[in-house]
Amino acid sequence: MPLSIHPQVDRGAKAAAANFTGGNLSCHCADRKVTVAIKGQAQFNHVCGCTKCWKPAGSLFSQVAATASTNVSVTANADKLKVVDDKALIQRYACAQCGVHMHGRVNRPGHPLHGFDFFHTELSTDAGWAPPGFAAFVSSIIESGADPERMGDVRARLRELGLEPYDCLSPGLMDFIATAVAKSSNVPKRKMAEVSG
Amino acid sequence: MPLSIHPQVDRGAKAAAANFTGGNLSCHCADRKVTVAIKGQAQFNHVCGCTKCWKPAGSLFSQVAATASTNVSVTANADKLKVVDDKALIQRYACAQCGVHMHGRVNRPGHPLHGFDFFHTELSTDAGWAPPGFAAFVSSIIESGADPERMGDVRARLRELGLEPYDCLSPGLMDFIATAVAKSSNVPKRKMAEVSG
Ligand SMILES: [Zn+2]
Ligand SMILES: [Zn+2]
Repeated sequence: MPLSIHPQVDRGAKAAAANFTGGNLSCHCADRKVTVAIKGQAQFNHVCGCTKCWKPAGSLFSQVAATASTNVSVTANADKLKVVDDKALIQRYACAQCGVHMHGRVNRPGHPLHGFDFFHTELSTDAGWAPPGFAAFVSSIIESGADPERMGDVRARLRELGLEPYDCLSPGLMDFIATAVAKSSNVPKRKMAEVSG
Repeated sequence: MPLSIHPQVDRGAKAAAANFTGGNLSCHCADRKVTVAIKGQAQFNHVCGCTKCWKPAGSLFSQVAATASTNVSVTANADKLKVVDDKALIQRYACAQCGVHMHGRVNRPGHPLHGFDFFHTELSTDAGWAPPGFAAFVSSIIESGADPERMGDVRARLRELGLEPYDCLSPGLMDFIATAVAKSSNVPKRKMAEVSG
């Protein structure tokens, strides 16, 4: 059997619904659940191999989506939330009781990702979320104990699932971040030379 | 004409020589050149888009090779060398007169790249160096003024030259680094689950 990447992608992910208007996330507590409302579709969804994102027990990757922070609101039991690591770029708000991360906010003015929230669509029973489009920070799964010898299998399986593997973010996002960095430091555009004939 | 990546790869790179025993690097000064001897072949060579590596004027990428620090020795005019940024992970030793970086040393015990030196094979007139095998930190060229709109062209051209583009290092090196991190923090190997039938 193929390696398990994440329960929501192992058998192929469901397609996004057209005109999806958003949904609600709930933590895993039996009662006094923390709930979060997300307005609209995720800007992107992906699986992530980093050691910091919340993932279901036993999962090799997390599944993480992003949207503008203005689309995210805590709708019940906000008092149970606490920030996992207040020094991290992403302030991950977790339910202190069940441990599930409800949303992660980048609140660092000037940073390219300022104004983004990250969240886990699997905490929602609403159908129609955008499925993951790529795999980020793949090599990092080794840091949480994955066997380095099996990385070839992991990357092959990700490709089989249509999740192109990257050891950082996708080229589009990396370019987006680099563009913001260039803009904020006023780097002048350079002439890009061609190979002379 | 295609975009220029680096003068040494724009027309296709030369193949490595079998049993290559090493060579000598010289800075660009007219006299009192700094020279560095490299023992043996580079462990890997690549083009790099980061903003810190030395590159020829007008070049979009640098070309950087690596070897064990024990293979590197400064053979003349060492007094002209100074470290560009002593807070950087890579201590880049540059000729204070002509500005060329002669070698960059990682001297941080415990870091996965501790004991590596980086250097530029184009500073050597010896034939037979390993040619670049991939492109690293591609998105970072935007931070030195490359047009974000042309990144598709840049990546296509890199692929055409056999230099698979990555926005960090290559998967092999990223896995190598993650493995060292896991080892140094004694992360236990985990069971990697399969998709259940
Ligand atoms: Zn809870
Ligand atoms: Zn010099």
